[in-house]
Amino acid sequence: MAERIVVALGGNALGRTPEEQLALVEGTAKPIVDLVEKGYEVIIGHGNGPQVGLINLAMEFSANKGGGTPFMPFPECGAMTQGYIGYHLQQAIQAELRKRGIDRACATVITQVVVDGNDPGFQNPAKPVGSFYTQDEAERIAAEKGFRFVEDAGRGWRRVVPSPIPKRIVELKAVEQLVRAGDIVITVGGGGIPVVETEQGLRGVAAVIDKDRASALLARDIGADRLIILTAVDRVCVNYNKPGQRELAEMTLADCERYIAQGQFAPGSMLPKVESCMAFLRDSEHGTALITSLSRAAEALEGKTGTVIRR
Amino acid sequence: MAERIVVALGGNALGRTPEEQLALVEGTAKPIVDLVEKGYEVIIGHGNGPQVGLINLAMEFSANKGGGTPFMPFPECGAMTQGYIGYHLQQAIQAELRKRGIDRACATVITQVVVDGNDPGFQNPAKPVGSFYTQDEAERIAAEKGFRFVEDAGRGWRRVVPSPIPKRIVELKAVEQLVRAGDIVITVGGGGIPVVETEQGLRGVAAVIDKDRASALLARDIGADRLIILTAVDRVCVNYNKPGQRELAEMTLADCERYIAQGQFAPGSMLPKVESCMAFLRDSEHGTALITSLSRAAEALEGKTGTVIRR
Repeated sequence: MAERIVVALGGNALGRTPEEQLALVEGTAKPIVDLVEKGYEVIIGHGNGPQVGLINLAMEFSANKGGGTPFMPFPECGAMTQGYIGYHLQQAIQAELRKRGIDRACATVITQVVVDGNDPGFQNPAKPVGSFYTQDEAERIAAEKGFRFVEDAGRGWRRVVPSPIPKRIVELKAVEQLVRAGDIVITVGGGGIPVVETEQGLRGVAAVIDKDRASALLARDIGADRLIILTAVDRVCVNYNKPGQRELAEMTLADCERYIAQGQFAPGSMLPKVESCMAFLRDSEHGTALITSLSRAAEALEGKTGTVIRR
Repeated sequence: MAERIVVALGGNALGRTPEEQLALVEGTAKPIVDLVEKGYEVIIGHGNGPQVGLINLAMEFSANKGGGTPFMPFPECGAMTQGYIGYHLQQAIQAELRKRGIDRACATVITQVVVDGNDPGFQNPAKPVGSFYTQDEAERIAAEKGFRFVEDAGRGWRRVVPSPIPKRIVELKAVEQLVRAGDIVITVGGGGIPVVETEQGLRGVAAVIDKDRASALLARDIGADRLIILTAVDRVCVNYNKPGQRELAEMTLADCERYIAQGQFAPGSMLPKVESCMAFLRDSEHGTALITSLSRAAEALEGKTGTVIRR
């Protein structure tokens, strides 16, 4: 049986404009199709930071400044990014598959991810999104819409949303069916559209789910053999950007815990990536995780680079 | 074997704001799930007129008026609507399925539809999209971006895009796999993201594909038994809104041709719906088409209302 891999791609690697994104997905498609060509089953999760930022900004600007379009809630902006990014990514992967004569389909599934309404993240929203406002504007919007705002480093007031832990991938079954049929599937875009369970069904919430955590959940629930988290560096380092910097070829869960206790991994950067790998490994008996760069992913799977994390 | 149905939903039936859409999809989900409950395989195509209008407007307004976000091409706006509408529709259908204890999945597939770059529509773009401009602004943008503009009934100048004939549904295989696995699938949103074939792969084009034509193509290529086009009336009429108005319970292809020659069906309204049914029937040996209202779709399948069209 083919080894099943979940690849988590960064939203920053997709650029800040549609033209940039269209150019960058070409470069993304090649290493992804390398994995397909080597016989792996590939499922792609991706971030959407810059993309949901620009859509949310444009929607807010137009609604507030006389564009005559309605206010667009944050989960709906996230759903839009899944269409926008998925379209470009699947088109580039389809072109690369065709160029190599590989008869496999690639499709994007719009994906909701359930979070717990009691997640402590909801008490302490910390992820800034959307426009900068004056204090007066921020207070008015806060009163009107119930949003939370924080002062952002002298640049003005900005809405903050929580970053809750992903609990369940709603469209997992559809993703599984497509993977089993041989397709390359793009899912949990931007970490998934965050929803909470209610008696009436699911309901979108303004939040940002970390895409590495969502990809780790996906890897566990879809029974992946490997979780690959792609980042800007080939390998995880200790003493990163300091004297004694050292690349790590391997880590165990115990190593991860020790390095985290030492503060080796930056919060909001390498730390959530390592923690996502750990979450996957704790629940997967046979799985391994890999942190490496996009361009060297295929080499990393052959053990030539990357940081492998095992139980 | 279960009968396979493609249902084409109007974008206007989904409202003009996210709140309206969220309320309206609940009412849409019920008759859809009625069909599922009766044992039909259901695939949903839908329009996106108001939705792509609002996204395109907001993006244009923000890019032009200092919002600081990039210009967003039209096919990318269409991809966003597939995420935005698909998210709400699948959530509502999932809730309705769960309420009735039906263990079926529902998912949205981001879908590209190939059109012919030589389609005569590209010579005569006629579908207005986006903001109203002054003549000076329109001329400047036309020179800069190569867009076509027309004066719109004294209200200003507006960009027009072509409405080419859909030729091929790129993600058909993935849709088929999900349908075969028992899922309710949402696809060809807004008629699909329009793309043309190039040597480098597919490339998005600024165009609007009629959602009824795209749904008819889908129905043919996925081997549907029925194409149901939902509209505001229960039955197609001759002498519509005139003396001698008469509801039609049945039409053959020959009847359709005769009525069209008489000018019975309004262009941009009932005509493309009837033509889409005809296109499906010409290529399908056993299929039937049905034009009716959303709320009476299940009754129409029992022959109690609706207009059935046969070869």
